[in-house]
Amino acid sequence: MAKCFSQWKKQCLNKLDCSKKGSVDQDIEHVVSQLNSCEQYFTTSSCSGRIIVIDAAPDSSDVQKRNCVWLFVTHQPCTSDDVVSAVAESTRDAVLKFEPFVLHVQCRRLEDAQLVHSVAINSGFRNSGLTIGKTGKIIMAVRSTHSLEVPLSHKGKLLVGHEYINFLTQMANQKMEENLRRIQRFYQNLQLALTTDKLQELQIPDHSRSQELQYTPNTPETEEKIKTSVYKRRRKRDQHQTDCCHGDGSDIVHELDDCLDLFT
Amino acid sequence: MAKCFSQWKKQCLNKLDCSKKGSVDQDIEHVVSQLNSCEQYFTTSSCSGRIIVIDAAPDSSDVQKRNCVWLFVTHQPCTSDDVVSAVAESTRDAVLKFEPFVLHVQCRRLEDAQLVHSVAINSGFRNSGLTIGKTGKIIMAVRSTHSLEVPLSHKGKLLVGHEYINFLTQMANQKMEENLRRIQRFYQNLQLALTTDKLQELQIPDHSRSQELQYTPNTPETEEKIKTSVYKRRRKRDQHQTDCCHGDGSDIVHELDDCLDLFT
Repeated sequence: MAKCFSQWKKQCLNKLDCSKKGSVDQDIEHVVSQLNSCEQYFTTSSCSGRIIVIDAAPDSSDVQKRNCVWLFVTHQPCTSDDVVSAVAESTRDAVLKFEPFVLHVQCRRLEDAQLVHSVAINSGFRNSGLTIGKTGKIIMAVRSTHSLEVPLSHKGKLLVGHEYINFLTQMANQKMEENLRRIQRFYQNLQLALTTDKLQELQIPDHSRSQELQYTPNTPETEEKIKTSVYKRRRKRDQHQTDCCHGDGSDIVHELDDCLDLFT
Repeated sequence: MAKCFSQWKKQCLNKLDCSKKGSVDQDIEHVVSQLNSCEQYFTTSSCSGRIIVIDAAPDSSDVQKRNCVWLFVTHQPCTSDDVVSAVAESTRDAVLKFEPFVLHVQCRRLEDAQLVHSVAINSGFRNSGLTIGKTGKIIMAVRSTHSLEVPLSHKGKLLVGHEYINFLTQMANQKMEENLRRIQRFYQNLQLALTTDKLQELQIPDHSRSQELQYTPNTPETEEKIKTSVYKRRRKRDQHQTDCCHGDGSDIVHELDDCLDLFT
């Protein structure tokens, strides 16, 4: 299995980037590099998050949406003029979407995947999950619930006013900012988790280091750790009554509470 | 582990339903019953899909959104009057959302989870994934990418016209219908997969049954199987160029191609 994984990794990293853009997005280069520098991980696809306007046939299914026209795409904040110009080109049904950070990481062992999953959930990426293929391929998908999907035109006719598009652009930009904060939180939590994991693997009882991680709130990592911990506890408190329609009072975040719990 | 799972199952099914609604949604009762009747599964939470209007503080984070007011919720199609009346009550920022089917299934073994995962992906629930806790708890989450999230008011002031709300309601209802079709597809594929799995487990080389499943397009199950297979192939063909910003030309659906592949 170990040999197989390193072969997969070599093949994947040597392959041509077949995405539309052809390269890793700037805002997540450090995250992708960090993971690819670890022997137990490599990334198979990613997007830092984007604001898009697409034009598709009315009532088209997801499959048919593959044939849609991309009127606008940006991985940075945008202006309402960008959106107005894009939707002016619509001949079918235009929709504005904010699509958050997504990352697929192939992992060597299940424990490696559990570590990234725990980091992802603790960083706010609550729709993250594993895929385990029958050949032993383990993929961890980092996904967020944090989106926006707003119809703008129908059969080429604008459905909303410019004032609304202005408001929408602000919302999309706010979501983009929050998305970047979560990416940063993910990156910092990942660094911390990998360090802790490595120390445990080496079985070096490095007390000074572990005490620093636990008690000294002077580094960005530890400050973030404390924030994350508070964030998680707050979530726990607020979710005693689940939003799901049928439930045992827990949700997927609680299911993970018995997971690695790196940050509490 | 086996004993532990049956204890978890007993505890969970005897527990009070702590959700807002307090019961399983009508449209997925058959799915939940089917899973709970299998010794290797039990459901921990679910929602058949819903249209909601919520009112939250502007710029509030996801955590603060827990304190939002629910102005409207339905698990059935709705009218634009329902939405207009709901948003009239808004004092903060109202948002209309369509939230698709979600289901959390605790699974006895990893293979059991892989089977439900494969069924979910093949039925169109592309954001599905596993969570594996450190105590061995395996949760399979069935999730869709199929959503809608549209701001309707800001500080209590309506941002859009009634005509737009009318259009939006139609879209949300269409998504609700498509969601129900996918639930049905999931149910039928699940039945088929469980039957196949059981036959394999019993190691009975039941040729007549397996031939019926493979070749006779006369039952709803097999017709659905063929549709699913076509659907999957079409997806494969369309996704040679991935929408992700950096990618190896595959996506999570392709990662699953080496999974159970029950339907090809």
